[in-house]
Amino acid sequence: MREVPILVVSIAISLCAFAFASWLFVWVKRQPSSNDKIAKVGGYIQKGANTFLSKEYAVLAKFAGIAALLILIFLPKAIWKGNVGENIIVALSYIFGTVFSAIAGKVGIMVATIANMKTAEAAQKGIKPSFLCGFRGGAVMGMAVVGSSLLGVILIFWIVGQSHALLGFSFGASSLALFAKAGGGIFTKTADISADLVGKVELGFPEDDPRNPAVIADNVGDNVGDVAGMGADLFDSHVASMSAALVMAINLDKVLNSNKNVMTVIIYAALGLLASIIGVATARMGKNNQPTAALNSSTYVTTGVYALLTVLATWVFALEWRIWFAAIIGLFVGVIIGIASDYFTNDTRKPVQEVSKASESGPAFTILSGVSYGFLSTLPAMVGIAVSALLAFVITKPLGGVALGADFGMFGISMAAVGMLSIVGMIISNDAYGPIVDNARGLAEMGGLGEEVIEITDTLDSAGNTVKAVTKGFAIGAAGLTVIALLGAFLSEVNTAIVEKNLSIAKFTGFDIMDPVVFFGLLVGAAVPAVFSALLMLGVDRNAQRMVAEIHRQFEEIPGLLEGKEDVIPEYEKCIAIATKGALRELVPAGLFAIVITLIVGFIGGVKAIGGFLAGNIVSGLLLALFMSNAGGLWDNAKKYVEAGNNGGKGSTAHKSAVVGDTVGDPFKDTAGPSINTQITVVSLVATLLSTIFLTLSIF
Amino acid sequence: MREVPILVVSIAISLCAFAFASWLFVWVKRQPSSNDKIAKVGGYIQKGANTFLSKEYAVLAKFAGIAALLILIFLPKAIWKGNVGENIIVALSYIFGTVFSAIAGKVGIMVATIANMKTAEAAQKGIKPSFLCGFRGGAVMGMAVVGSSLLGVILIFWIVGQSHALLGFSFGASSLALFAKAGGGIFTKTADISADLVGKVELGFPEDDPRNPAVIADNVGDNVGDVAGMGADLFDSHVASMSAALVMAINLDKVLNSNKNVMTVIIYAALGLLASIIGVATARMGKNNQPTAALNSSTYVTTGVYALLTVLATWVFALEWRIWFAAIIGLFVGVIIGIASDYFTNDTRKPVQEVSKASESGPAFTILSGVSYGFLSTLPAMVGIAVSALLAFVITKPLGGVALGADFGMFGISMAAVGMLSIVGMIISNDAYGPIVDNARGLAEMGGLGEEVIEITDTLDSAGNTVKAVTKGFAIGAAGLTVIALLGAFLSEVNTAIVEKNLSIAKFTGFDIMDPVVFFGLLVGAAVPAVFSALLMLGVDRNAQRMVAEIHRQFEEIPGLLEGKEDVIPEYEKCIAIATKGALRELVPAGLFAIVITLIVGFIGGVKAIGGFLAGNIVSGLLLALFMSNAGGLWDNAKKYVEAGNNGGKGSTAHKSAVVGDTVGDPFKDTAGPSINTQITVVSLVATLLSTIFLTLSIF
Repeated sequence: MREVPILVVSIAISLCAFAFASWLFVWVKRQPSSNDKIAKVGGYIQKGANTFLSKEYAVLAKFAGIAALLILIFLPKAIWKGNVGENIIVALSYIFGTVFSAIAGKVGIMVATIANMKTAEAAQKGIKPSFLCGFRGGAVMGMAVVGSSLLGVILIFWIVGQSHALLGFSFGASSLALFAKAGGGIFTKTADISADLVGKVELGFPEDDPRNPAVIADNVGDNVGDVAGMGADLFDSHVASMSAALVMAINLDKVLNSNKNVMTVIIYAALGLLASIIGVATARMGKNNQPTAALNSSTYVTTGVYALLTVLATWVFALEWRIWFAAIIGLFVGVIIGIASDYFTNDTRKPVQEVSKASESGPAFTILSGVSYGFLSTLPAMVGIAVSALLAFVITKPLGGVALGADFGMFGISMAAVGMLSIVGMIISNDAYGPIVDNARGLAEMGGLGEEVIEITDTLDSAGNTVKAVTKGFAIGAAGLTVIALLGAFLSEVNTAIVEKNLSIAKFTGFDIMDPVVFFGLLVGAAVPAVFSALLMLGVDRNAQRMVAEIHRQFEEIPGLLEGKEDVIPEYEKCIAIATKGALRELVPAGLFAIVITLIVGFIGGVKAIGGFLAGNIVSGLLLALFMSNAGGLWDNAKKYVEAGNNGGKGSTAHKSAVVGDTVGDPFKDTAGPSINTQITVVSLVATLLSTIFLTLSIF
Repeated sequence: MREVPILVVSIAISLCAFAFASWLFVWVKRQPSSNDKIAKVGGYIQKGANTFLSKEYAVLAKFAGIAALLILIFLPKAIWKGNVGENIIVALSYIFGTVFSAIAGKVGIMVATIANMKTAEAAQKGIKPSFLCGFRGGAVMGMAVVGSSLLGVILIFWIVGQSHALLGFSFGASSLALFAKAGGGIFTKTADISADLVGKVELGFPEDDPRNPAVIADNVGDNVGDVAGMGADLFDSHVASMSAALVMAINLDKVLNSNKNVMTVIIYAALGLLASIIGVATARMGKNNQPTAALNSSTYVTTGVYALLTVLATWVFALEWRIWFAAIIGLFVGVIIGIASDYFTNDTRKPVQEVSKASESGPAFTILSGVSYGFLSTLPAMVGIAVSALLAFVITKPLGGVALGADFGMFGISMAAVGMLSIVGMIISNDAYGPIVDNARGLAEMGGLGEEVIEITDTLDSAGNTVKAVTKGFAIGAAGLTVIALLGAFLSEVNTAIVEKNLSIAKFTGFDIMDPVVFFGLLVGAAVPAVFSALLMLGVDRNAQRMVAEIHRQFEEIPGLLEGKEDVIPEYEKCIAIATKGALRELVPAGLFAIVITLIVGFIGGVKAIGGFLAGNIVSGLLLALFMSNAGGLWDNAKKYVEAGNNGGKGSTAHKSAVVGDTVGDPFKDTAGPSINTQITVVSLVATLLSTIFLTLSIF
């Protein structure tokens, strides 16, 4: 196949995404604004979010600097043994990965902190203009993220064309995601919990009351956690899925002396972005003014367009239909997982209603029933991921024949991941819509826009919450398939190294569970996500205690604040500073733990132990991530269900219990749960990059 | 080696255990009793426990009947294809397994419901006689359980000498354990939660107030859950560890044309029982009247005696020192896991104190910090199990040489499990001590024995709680190693079948994680313990709601009950009936789910998928069991720590929050957590028994 035209067209598609994002950005910026109060409060949020981001990036820069130096010295070979040029390329790719992801996050924050104000003001004109404003703001993030991940991967592939560089780029994206997701997650929940605890529970303030010193920090948190953090997470998954597929395709094509598989990956990924652009461009609210329906329909449009485009491409370029089928299976299962998450978190379904009912007997029952449904919710997603991996493998395996062995099957799995993540541009757009309209609701309240406007923003916010559960399930499923594919990439790298370096070791055909070195890795790997999430949650706990003390201090020391005297403004920035400092301090032990234990296992048990370790990590990580995300979403919606007047309504025992559930669920669903994705990817990439070192240096 | 003398001496040791148990039983029975009120209340408890047991056994008999019939028809080969005699033997062994375990449970309940009264009355004479009474009551259970498990395994081995029969016996023990542990667990927590919720929280009654209609059910629950349930659980683990080791030893000895390995298993197991007898017989409370020290010292005596006896036996019989070492590694790691559990649940350590402090901010923080420490607590045990399996394997592997391949290493792992479970007689004695003195405390309260006596029983009870955390960690660790060994037995069975039946399939060398059929099993298997525990906890939830309604009804309809009028007695038996009926009804879906999903996975993916399924099940089962047991124990002790006057003491916010934590922790630590052990064993045995069928009938 002719590479250059395909690569050029793909780059053109990613540039289209940037152009479209710019157009949307300008459109959002041009929307009218007139309310001074909103401008002022919005300014606080903007400043807080940017301050956090700069501090976070400053910490990250140090970390990335050290990591890049280590890569330069050791990877892919120790600098005194190998080719210095290769090491420089991998280190540079790593830096590119962090920078690309950081820029996408920065752009997202920039537009989100403008779009929230515009959305609030647009709500004065009605739900339709307000929805469009929120949606288009989110879409800027979606287009920027997916445009830059595709562009980055293609450039690295075209310029360097070598798997270590791709893995380095992907590792860069992962390290940033780890900071952004875990740090942002700690920030947002510190602020949210503290604001609620003192404001709502102790003093009986409404949500978003401007007297609450933590209220701005809470709104900043939505941006840094849900916009920047989630964007970095999906940037990471998207890059990892493409890199895993490309690494395997490069190794396959070497044997086949072709470029067909590599081109398949690039064509499918580029068409996914094109489909997302079309989906975003056609999103409109229908006559019935249902924001949920509008969000969902744009997802279906994207999915349909993607299926159509890939059919055409497969036919025109005479690609392999079985691989197309693997990609479509991935996409289909992604949708199924989303629907299952929706079932467990939607207030029209049994789980939320049962938990609300159990709350009548007290908070212990809210927790017990929520934990139970959270555990149940893991089954459909785990089975879905398992079945899609199995089918993708079984369908594509015969392509390789005896000579290639199992490699084609693993490539099929990686293509299922690429297929699932093809619509990620649309998913990010929908997801970023959530915090924008959530912020808009706060601004409408603080700007005094009146009941009617607040109600409109409430409707938009509630749609954001519903869609969020679906996109979160989708993100976990996608990460699951991606890391299975990364496991394949790991094996592929190990075996390529054995051949290329003429090592006197037999090629690895796989990792045998019955080998106790593998089983050792399996058990240790399974404990890692549990410990990782525990460290993050304890971080939120400690940080929230600091912020609660600060809020208490302000109410005591600032005269007139509690009574809400005109012109008395709390020291918002102090709360933001606490959240910022604490988040960055608390995420370090969790991140270091995950990386260091990978190194320990690798140096003890070598490649075999790492194989088991990654599998254990994936399995228990998926389980805990699904449990925590779904239980958290369920508790959130159970509280809203009670507040809507069910099971006693506001102020009842059920309500108090449901608030406890919601508080427990917050760090579950917004700190620990979604950070596990990133933890798994980081660990997989560290292991893959170090595979050659583990191959030669280990005790067992 | 000469088999007959060794078998005869081993049988004699188990008969010694029975004789010792009888002596202890008579001793307990002979202790004086005079208080009519205690006799009356004690009679209620006795009757309630026996009623539950009969009903449970009636349900079990039906289940066991169906299972035995299916075994008769299908196992080890379909009756129309194979040897009918073999099928009859396996079915009979299965029935023996259930019956032996049932008798041990019945004996335990019988003595526990007498010992509780005697212990209460003995407390009037001081802490020493009271302690001895409680401890010896528990020891009857310990001796009866371990005596019968050893006797059963030896008899089956001697008479039949065939691995299918051993697995059938073990499966019988497991099915009973599943019912006893899960059913008893639902019973005890239904009663405990309901009694606390209405009695303590709503009405402000003290613990064990005789006006509370659920108070007898609560005491019955201690017996059926903690005595009978836990006994069945450890009976099951003990039988499974010996069976797994014997199955592998039989297959090894076939190749080696020897009986040395088989005899090693039997000698080591018998010496474990002997050491436990010595440990129990020498247990005395020292001068400082510390019950915890007395319980711990008897464990150390048993451990020391066991090490000494096995050194002697290994030298005299010229057994293999490497295998001795594997067994001792297991024992040592068991102790380490116990110590780690103690750290996370002891109120002199940081975790409990931090959770108590966090409780000052409200129940959500109790839950969040408890969940976090629960997650952290999984690491030492998971690493401990992983390391002990790895070391046992590495040490014993070279024994086999090339011809035997990895079999010796897996046998080493199974011997580590045998070593860990060698002191199980002592462990059960210590564990059964807990509910006896807990009951005694209740009886002292209800019998009006006065403050001083209640204080003594309180001290004894608190020691029981401390030791319980350790024994629970130990039980999970033991189950972990045992099921790893069962995985080895599964593989060994599959390969023996391939050879014996001349199937045209290559022998399985193991299960490759990179094979998507295995990975499919791994993911599905990992979800099973989560779903299983969710079903049990939802059962407790539903059942507790029914009982709370009944308690409310009684307080409304029985005049004078609430005020505590003389001679007004609540309808205790109604609450017991609700707990009984509900427990048996709610455990069925959970048990069926575990078995049916094993069948589905087996018929879809065959032996390979089952290999992955078992590994996933073990890994996530251990993780969740450790998390739930430790978090539950931690919350229990955090509540007690606050009640002792810390962080505001009784009635403070911290106390209210800690009570919520305790209520959540109850089904975690006494229903779901410990039932997961049994679920894993049942699933492993079902899979092993059906291995030949999965080998020939499956889609992939």
